[in-house]
Amino acid sequence: MSERIRDFLRRRDDDGPCVVVDLDIVRDNYETFAKALPDTSVYYAVKANPAPEILSLLESLGSSFDCASVGEIEMVLATGASADRISYGNTIKKERDIAKAHAYGVRLFAVDCPEEVEKIARAAPGSRVFCRVLCDGAGAEWPLSRKFGCDPAMAPDVLEHAHRLGLQAYGVSFHVGSQQANLQAWDFALAMAAGVFQEMAVRGIDLKMVNMGGGFPTRYLKDVPGVPSYGAAIFGSLTKHFGNRLPATIIEPGRGMVGNAGLIEAEVVLISKKSEQDEVRWVYLDIGKFHGLAETMDEAIRYPIRTEKDGAETVPCVLAGPTCDSVDVLYEKTPYPLPVSLSIGDKVLIEATGAYTTTYSSVGFNGFAPLASYVI
Amino acid sequence: MSERIRDFLRRRDDDGPCVVVDLDIVRDNYETFAKALPDTSVYYAVKANPAPEILSLLESLGSSFDCASVGEIEMVLATGASADRISYGNTIKKERDIAKAHAYGVRLFAVDCPEEVEKIARAAPGSRVFCRVLCDGAGAEWPLSRKFGCDPAMAPDVLEHAHRLGLQAYGVSFHVGSQQANLQAWDFALAMAAGVFQEMAVRGIDLKMVNMGGGFPTRYLKDVPGVPSYGAAIFGSLTKHFGNRLPATIIEPGRGMVGNAGLIEAEVVLISKKSEQDEVRWVYLDIGKFHGLAETMDEAIRYPIRTEKDGAETVPCVLAGPTCDSVDVLYEKTPYPLPVSLSIGDKVLIEATGAYTTTYSSVGFNGFAPLASYVI
Repeated sequence: MSERIRDFLRRRDDDGPCVVVDLDIVRDNYETFAKALPDTSVYYAVKANPAPEILSLLESLGSSFDCASVGEIEMVLATGASADRISYGNTIKKERDIAKAHAYGVRLFAVDCPEEVEKIARAAPGSRVFCRVLCDGAGAEWPLSRKFGCDPAMAPDVLEHAHRLGLQAYGVSFHVGSQQANLQAWDFALAMAAGVFQEMAVRGIDLKMVNMGGGFPTRYLKDVPGVPSYGAAIFGSLTKHFGNRLPATIIEPGRGMVGNAGLIEAEVVLISKKSEQDEVRWVYLDIGKFHGLAETMDEAIRYPIRTEKDGAETVPCVLAGPTCDSVDVLYEKTPYPLPVSLSIGDKVLIEATGAYTTTYSSVGFNGFAPLASYVI
Repeated sequence: MSERIRDFLRRRDDDGPCVVVDLDIVRDNYETFAKALPDTSVYYAVKANPAPEILSLLESLGSSFDCASVGEIEMVLATGASADRISYGNTIKKERDIAKAHAYGVRLFAVDCPEEVEKIARAAPGSRVFCRVLCDGAGAEWPLSRKFGCDPAMAPDVLEHAHRLGLQAYGVSFHVGSQQANLQAWDFALAMAAGVFQEMAVRGIDLKMVNMGGGFPTRYLKDVPGVPSYGAAIFGSLTKHFGNRLPATIIEPGRGMVGNAGLIEAEVVLISKKSEQDEVRWVYLDIGKFHGLAETMDEAIRYPIRTEKDGAETVPCVLAGPTCDSVDVLYEKTPYPLPVSLSIGDKVLIEATGAYTTTYSSVGFNGFAPLASYVI
């Protein structure tokens, strides 16, 4: 935990759980990405954490932005960033939202099917489009579903369709899966992207750009390769598959940019057992799945948790949230070891919670307020 | 769909998805519960849908309220209901929230362990407490986890502890599991409750109340038993297990009170295929898991969906939401049959969505606004 966050929390007198994001760490993360992949443009995935202070910092550092909606585009424009630093990266867009984005000056759009190409041709004529291609996500902690992207064999038809409708068939995108620790995953995806470039060249259309998406991991409890390792591996794969005709490249870090910059402070509401013989304790916090920790779903992400009693003997605990909803349980299949001396009223610190916490929070399930957020 | 909702939607000119709740249906549901179980008090589970219009209607009909937090207690008090119509039914409460509730006049609290009893004895002295007991939920569509309640063998100790600390050991509660279609489930639970009453009588403490919780189903695609069948079965079990010393009883319908009163109108954003050979279409709506349809998680609830093209030939569709999140897919394991003529821009109506939609909605994931709600 950063000293700045520690100081902030010591002085805070608000009640209830909150997340605190340290901008110094976001800045370090941006610079690490920029240095590891110096010829690649960074498009921050706004959905990971759209706090205005984070967007403004990244704007001042020269970042571009990957937006999922007109709402996110407006948040980015509010920082003063020009629209040419925005990619409308959602493959699922209403035609009237495309028109709004176009009116704002956005000229770069994701597609994965001819139907979406047609909307863009009508609502944002002349724009650049890149086609998202399915990627199997092997090695990712959260392999993606088939929701985004088309079969690689279909991509040239989608892009040629765009070209014929007066759009600029600009490139290819993929996503190797969230929290991807397998450096080879980018190699497979880049080989596939190079194949689409070659097929398009045969059709007389020169693609210019590869959007390599996100997937850069944040360190939770397990070690992950550092960004420089990713940079070296990706650069190696690019030269291997594209030779000396390297395309322009984009990355879209979200979790990798803000995950480790944030920390949640929560409180122990109750510690109990279900029967006198139970060996497992139930520890209930004032935050759960519905107020910021949605990514514990299926126990996918196991956050590091610090307490004031660390160092004491631990006991296995089922960790749960405060709502009257039986699915609001964070860790049960694999109980979480917590200090035996942990007490009701103690604070706990949940680390690496800068990404996908504030925005996943419900508006007020069970009458509890959304997760409070501070950016320092 | 009610004629009132149809009229409202015809006149609406707002953009984006919304849920519309028909108060006439809520009124019918309340009256059906009251008639099916005339000697039982209805405590509406506020978490299912805390819209002020719904709370005010139920207040005027004489309902009481099951609240999960101080926030919900304040919403109920805002209708003018007196605090003696409120049960603080969450077994997980901060001591300072218990004190706030007590200051508001709330005198009925749920517990499931000695630690919670001690908080209530300190912060709400003299109050009534009921002990929630674990119930296996067999037959429920969503059996509950072990999050709430203690082993039945532990309940007498919890209640005796309350008695010794100056609280009124008032009764027992259970929850048979959400969307419970097995009428026998209440019989098992009531037998268990009667056992706790007997053990407490041996200890010289007379319990007064059984809180039978919720679990009353709403009709989605499958038929479910009607509320009168539940009423008859529950009354039969009560007399079977308690003889002529019937306890006071409470039910806490949430989904059963408002589920079928609401309807979501959404729009088809995109229809596409992942490859030219695919037999399954992908249909993307402007609402998904993060903006109201969280209960499609694991495809648990299969909502009835109406379109303007109903009656036409259907094709299997994967149904997904609009966000850049690969888990935002509603139905994939079991594709949803939708009309082959369904088009981008068409409206779809998602029925039985009055419960657990507005409050599960995220604050703004991907920059999309929370689910808009209208109560008519």
